[in-house]
Amino acid sequence: MAKKVLKFGGTSVGTVERIQHVANIIKKEHSEHNQIIAVVSAMSGKTNNLIDLSKEISNDFNKRELDVLLSSGEQVTAALLAGALIKLKIKAKSWLNWQIPILTEGEHSNARIINMNVTKINNFLKDNGVAIIPGFQGISKLGEVTTIGRGGSDATAVATAKLFDADSCEIYTDVDGVFSTDPNKIPVAKKIDKISYDEMLELSSLGAKVMQPSAVQTAMIYDIPLEVRSTFTDRKGTKIFDKENIDYSKSVTGVAYSKDDAKITLIGVKDKPGVAANIFEPLSKAQINVDMVIQNISSDQKTTDITFTIKRDEVSKTIDILKNNKDIVYSDIVHNDKVAKVSIVGAGMVSTPGVTYKMFRALSDEKINILAISTSEIKLSVIIEENNTLNAIKKLHTIFDLD
Amino acid sequence: MAKKVLKFGGTSVGTVERIQHVANIIKKEHSEHNQIIAVVSAMSGKTNNLIDLSKEISNDFNKRELDVLLSSGEQVTAALLAGALIKLKIKAKSWLNWQIPILTEGEHSNARIINMNVTKINNFLKDNGVAIIPGFQGISKLGEVTTIGRGGSDATAVATAKLFDADSCEIYTDVDGVFSTDPNKIPVAKKIDKISYDEMLELSSLGAKVMQPSAVQTAMIYDIPLEVRSTFTDRKGTKIFDKENIDYSKSVTGVAYSKDDAKITLIGVKDKPGVAANIFEPLSKAQINVDMVIQNISSDQKTTDITFTIKRDEVSKTIDILKNNKDIVYSDIVHNDKVAKVSIVGAGMVSTPGVTYKMFRALSDEKINILAISTSEIKLSVIIEENNTLNAIKKLHTIFDLD
Repeated sequence: MAKKVLKFGGTSVGTVERIQHVANIIKKEHSEHNQIIAVVSAMSGKTNNLIDLSKEISNDFNKRELDVLLSSGEQVTAALLAGALIKLKIKAKSWLNWQIPILTEGEHSNARIINMNVTKINNFLKDNGVAIIPGFQGISKLGEVTTIGRGGSDATAVATAKLFDADSCEIYTDVDGVFSTDPNKIPVAKKIDKISYDEMLELSSLGAKVMQPSAVQTAMIYDIPLEVRSTFTDRKGTKIFDKENIDYSKSVTGVAYSKDDAKITLIGVKDKPGVAANIFEPLSKAQINVDMVIQNISSDQKTTDITFTIKRDEVSKTIDILKNNKDIVYSDIVHNDKVAKVSIVGAGMVSTPGVTYKMFRALSDEKINILAISTSEIKLSVIIEENNTLNAIKKLHTIFDLD
Repeated sequence: MAKKVLKFGGTSVGTVERIQHVANIIKKEHSEHNQIIAVVSAMSGKTNNLIDLSKEISNDFNKRELDVLLSSGEQVTAALLAGALIKLKIKAKSWLNWQIPILTEGEHSNARIINMNVTKINNFLKDNGVAIIPGFQGISKLGEVTTIGRGGSDATAVATAKLFDADSCEIYTDVDGVFSTDPNKIPVAKKIDKISYDEMLELSSLGAKVMQPSAVQTAMIYDIPLEVRSTFTDRKGTKIFDKENIDYSKSVTGVAYSKDDAKITLIGVKDKPGVAANIFEPLSKAQINVDMVIQNISSDQKTTDITFTIKRDEVSKTIDILKNNKDIVYSDIVHNDKVAKVSIVGAGMVSTPGVTYKMFRALSDEKINILAISTSEIKLSVIIEENNTLNAIKKLHTIFDLD
């Protein structure tokens, strides 16, 4: 017998038929004498529909009321799933944000879960009941409805697992797990059986959008074992653990890439303290998300070049800001709108000599020019011309024995 | 300055555009220094969609969870309307069932509002805020979500007006008010400016489906002045008062009719106590709604004929029950599937001699045969052949000076 938190994403509960399917998954787990708390997302498309309604009224729709509006989506799923379980003769009950309550702090649309009252639900679980909790939401200390950001149902699941001291937290979604690279592009991509929290973080922030990064981070902090698996197959998913528990036979766990990137280089920037801050502060204020930043040692000790990557649709806005900013002195701006970032990720990299060299050599063999490089302990990213992306991923996937 | 409860029905808030229009109606009332509490229904179609989802799971969907499911509809409208008001620079806030709270008692899907905490909302009103309340719902003493039956937003509006001691309660809907008869059938139908609660009750239960009858009844008990008016025009609506306040220059206020009726007569029933109960108890248990019941004095002191009307689609079920019931002795059953009920309603009828005679004479002039008659203090109904309905309504509308 284990206490399990099972989280079902939007596509997993996207229709009544799928909700009934989810009820059967829960029924099976329940029949194996597990205590089940199910955390549910809104039916797929629902949250976007509600956001569209709010935008018809105002692009700057009041955030308090937006939270009231959006939180209705998970409420609908929770009630339907509870009803579907009861129909299967399983004792079940939906618990709304205020009924538990799920206490949050922080601003509307971006709150954090800080506590839940576990007593009533624990009693219900002991009494053989399945508890259904709406993801993505909570209430503030003042009794206002709050939401915790897009993809927040993952965060609800992890917080629930932590606060209820669950044995595991299973994220049911529309893919089989975490893959060594994008299975839609590279048919030989393989499902990863086990992965460490930090590898998962690097992979998810790089585009393997299986789970919300901050939820993975929370799981890492509290050491909550996760499993990402498909709602639609019986296959085993990907287990996400602390890296101590993983045997690294391979140096590289996966190959990730991001699309729609652009690269901007400021040439001839004064090489003195505060310059980088002057460049990135106004971009941050304008909500422009800067990804990689590369700065080399300056050759003449006086000026240097700073390269960074952003999303392609923000290039003109970014260049406008740079050009209009009197605090930044530079000799030229150049940009390339058609670049991609390709990364190899692996907690075993740091202990395996030659990974870096192997990657550069592989790209060189394919005549792929590297435009910029950035590394961390478990990740090595390169910027290349976009049309080389597929070739690069294939080659790297092969040479690091992931096929 | 007045404190007003404004209730907006499903079609009035059926699209974002209409919600914005409602926001403008509220803005106008607010600019005239009125304190406004708006009670809102779910967007039209929404509640039915949610019911359909639940029925895909089970025709006997758990009632607790159904209430959780359905209550989300008004929550969405409340948030959108609050956001639309804020966009118009009006201070506004949605208050959910549990935030007020709206306390109810009674079973799921059929609860009654028994109290609301008025302090917080009254403070908000004094502070120039517009409060938005979801109709149709509340919470139980145990903190469960409850709903108060279809059309329940009218009941919420009246209860709100009572508990907040409002000066008036205005029901905004998709018609101009209460009409002397169906304006879709009789072009000379006229909007009634003032009507008493009990006339309104007779008219609404007879098919002038403008407002939920039990809400009118509550308003009558607590003497809360109502006004039914259109969301889509600036025209004055129909005011609904205590009859003391109405000057009855006309004996008849309106002509109502109901469709899809059928008449069943049991011939030769024993004329002794308990017979009627034996007939109608099994029908009631089978959820068959019996409308008119007519029983004449028996001519032979031994047997009598009992006639009653029901909805047409329940005729065969009703006859089966009657035939299979051993407690009922009769010589024959006859039925007529194509009848209609036409009624004249007017609080002035009781004090105006000759209304009854005038009605019968008018129908006779039109060669319309009366199949059954039933009267109350403010209503006189006849059952006629269905194909005579339109003629009867027209004639009665004319002779009682309603054109």
